[in-house]
Amino acid sequence: MKICGCLLDAEPKRLAALLQSPEVDLVEWRLDAFIAQRGWSETQTMLAVLREERRHPVLVTNRPERHGGRFLGSEEDRLTILEEAVRAGAQWVDLEDDVTVGDRERFRELGARVLVSHHDFLSTPETAELQAIARRLAPGADCIKVVAFARNRQDCLRILELISWGKAALGVDVIAFCMGSPGRWSRVVSLLLGSPWTYARLEGGAEAAPGQYSATEIRALLRLLT
Amino acid sequence: MKICGCLLDAEPKRLAALLQSPEVDLVEWRLDAFIAQRGWSETQTMLAVLREERRHPVLVTNRPERHGGRFLGSEEDRLTILEEAVRAGAQWVDLEDDVTVGDRERFRELGARVLVSHHDFLSTPETAELQAIARRLAPGADCIKVVAFARNRQDCLRILELISWGKAALGVDVIAFCMGSPGRWSRVVSLLLGSPWTYARLEGGAEAAPGQYSATEIRALLRLLT
Repeated sequence: MKICGCLLDAEPKRLAALLQSPEVDLVEWRLDAFIAQRGWSETQTMLAVLREERRHPVLVTNRPERHGGRFLGSEEDRLTILEEAVRAGAQWVDLEDDVTVGDRERFRELGARVLVSHHDFLSTPETAELQAIARRLAPGADCIKVVAFARNRQDCLRILELISWGKAALGVDVIAFCMGSPGRWSRVVSLLLGSPWTYARLEGGAEAAPGQYSATEIRALLRLLT
Repeated sequence: MKICGCLLDAEPKRLAALLQSPEVDLVEWRLDAFIAQRGWSETQTMLAVLREERRHPVLVTNRPERHGGRFLGSEEDRLTILEEAVRAGAQWVDLEDDVTVGDRERFRELGARVLVSHHDFLSTPETAELQAIARRLAPGADCIKVVAFARNRQDCLRILELISWGKAALGVDVIAFCMGSPGRWSRVVSLLLGSPWTYARLEGGAEAAPGQYSATEIRALLRLLT
């Protein structure tokens, strides 16, 4: 049950320390947020930190606008940036559901593990639709991630079911939880049900998504819930 | 989202204070546990405390051995004792699933609200069976309670689904959670999903069931989960 800290921005000199934050087990580096705030040139220079050995595993994400992220460039540039981060040492890459299986395989050949992700910012689909989404994500994925918006707390039960279903039916690890205030509890319960990690804000950082916990809060919850 | 403290034993002079415990909203008085430890005569005398006005609502339970409780007498005696507790002022009575609808109605005519309960100490039935159980519990019930043993954490999702299903399909409030260590988290999540209350041990008291939280732990969890 691991905690992935979300890194949305940082001063270059603080970056190495953040990638060793003791309260998390791995770090998602949101390159799209860095590029939007600092430009590609500065962000590119910062990638050198990935060559340091004393740091957590890093998952690089370069979320395009169409999936709720901040990257505005071409799809080709977007994937090239991720490729550069993987060549610099990032262990995981987050690829959205519309990235081809060929591109997913290409990242694996570079040595990265691939997380294929789907986000629904409006609602939580019904079970049959969630399973269809998971089937589309699985090819070429080491782990899949399905995140949906909860309109009520019951929505979370449907998405949490996907974790054990995906392991049994597709043989893949599943990260699945709901965004939004009624979905908050599912961020920690997903870990209890077998998700390899959940996302948390790094101490002193901003929420990467509404309802996100701090790593300290998640640890407190896990102590009480298990 | 209420917390029901479980009262398994108490010195007579402490009883009135326990029924006002500030950390809970209502109290389940396990008459079967009192009778097993103190005998019926002393327990009967203690029922006078129910006439006091300054106390929480009280749910009386007289669980027979066949349902995992400690009451060893006849079924007639068992119901007569509950009737005496209701006449003394208990607001709620817990009746097991094999109590006839006629008997359930009789308690309602005495002014009590009726919780009809089912316990499975071996496993968590499949969804269709859980729904069939709920249908059997609902007639003559103000609230139904389905508690099962979790062999793994996924079992909890099935039983938690029953809460909104029961409200929609049967028009009844549902208390549903899993016992056992893998079911622990469902005791608090059941509240998030609409159960009127969950059970907790009273401060300084013993667990009434494996995995039960203290009321203080539940309040801490609710603060973080909502």
